[in-house]
Amino acid sequence: MHVDVIGTIAEATTDDLLHRTVIVIDALRATSTLTTALAYGASGVVPVETVQQAKQLQQPGDLLGGERACKKIPGFDLGNSPSEYRADIVQGRRVVMTTTNGTRGIQKAQRASRVLAGSFLNARACAAAAAELQRDIAIICAGTQDVFSWEDGLCAGLIADELLRLQPVELNDLGLALLAGYRYEQKDLAAALLATSNGRRLSRIGFRDDVLFCAQCNVYDIVPMLHEGVLVPLGKIPPHRP
Amino acid sequence: MHVDVIGTIAEATTDDLLHRTVIVIDALRATSTLTTALAYGASGVVPVETVQQAKQLQQPGDLLGGERACKKIPGFDLGNSPSEYRADIVQGRRVVMTTTNGTRGIQKAQRASRVLAGSFLNARACAAAAAELQRDIAIICAGTQDVFSWEDGLCAGLIADELLRLQPVELNDLGLALLAGYRYEQKDLAAALLATSNGRRLSRIGFRDDVLFCAQCNVYDIVPMLHEGVLVPLGKIPPHRP
Repeated sequence: MHVDVIGTIAEATTDDLLHRTVIVIDALRATSTLTTALAYGASGVVPVETVQQAKQLQQPGDLLGGERACKKIPGFDLGNSPSEYRADIVQGRRVVMTTTNGTRGIQKAQRASRVLAGSFLNARACAAAAAELQRDIAIICAGTQDVFSWEDGLCAGLIADELLRLQPVELNDLGLALLAGYRYEQKDLAAALLATSNGRRLSRIGFRDDVLFCAQCNVYDIVPMLHEGVLVPLGKIPPHRP
Repeated sequence: MHVDVIGTIAEATTDDLLHRTVIVIDALRATSTLTTALAYGASGVVPVETVQQAKQLQQPGDLLGGERACKKIPGFDLGNSPSEYRADIVQGRRVVMTTTNGTRGIQKAQRASRVLAGSFLNARACAAAAAELQRDIAIICAGTQDVFSWEDGLCAGLIADELLRLQPVELNDLGLALLAGYRYEQKDLAAALLATSNGRRLSRIGFRDDVLFCAQCNVYDIVPMLHEGVLVPLGKIPPHRP
């Protein structure tokens, strides 16, 4: 099984997506947050690119979530902090979500055979789900406005490491680099995340606890998978028809 | 001092170059080979993009060197293997050189304040020279046809490590990733290089010894620096006029 890691959304080509399982990572914070929403009982997360699209797609009962410049969007119910997505708020409700990088990455990946959302929080479950789908895998690091983000790369390294525990895989060169980098940093991922550009920025504006939360490995078994435009927990969608 | 590592030549923007010291790395094999040529007494290396340009720029006494698809170009004196650049062949002569990635990277970097060529063979000397120039630094991994190459990333990590021994530096996220990856692999760089895409390809076509040669750290004090279109050893050019 080939596993190619791609450094930013912009670099992902159609060839990287077609007939593959794609794992999109925006570890700080979109994919961590939307996985948390599903873990606490949200019925689905609708990833959209713009604030206007979010408002247009909102149905009665839906929550609006997301960020611009790391902050909650005026008029939205929720920001992009996993701590906001509590069971008493999201249980049984759909969240329409727009973020600067992560939801855009998921949108772009829609041509793939299957699209999963990965983070430190669900890395092992995500690797197991991708392995089970038995196709070549592309791991897309969302990055930040088309620049590589180390937190996404670290998470890609962790997912590659989990995949290697399950079966032989052939990694592309960026995958080899990020696997090695992850293994060097794995003893203190919180420190590594706080040292990244986004980790420093989030700490500066009051979201240090989010960085620490997102640095936890394998706390959820939930794997968000895109199904008809909505991210739902993997077990809850009908089997794929070839 | 800011140190930004850039993953491929294609990604380098004018902003990455202007007013900076640029270090171009094509560890397998162009920058290793041209540094070897200078270490064994070549008077200069002229990096050019095309075979035709190489032939046009050749002056009496000049050698033609380089590769296409990893192999020597028909009619050229030398290929892209460091072992060919022996003292009895290159001493006192200029080499006009064209390779698929490395010499193109050096060409593109010409807008920088200073352009150096880095490899494992001269990493420490290269870091020291760049630190002494006292400008922000961009380390450009040449990559392979606009795709990231791990051997160049490993070398960028090594040079970042050497820079950090000399002074405080602020690394961009790719720099942090490659520094961590280098530190994980540093105990057996030869194995790491043999596992890269280019390492495997070169081994397959008979150049395994080149990969092992290029994996040696800090064996030369030579730092190739671009001066009026020619790479010459750093000590041999007149001081920079501001």
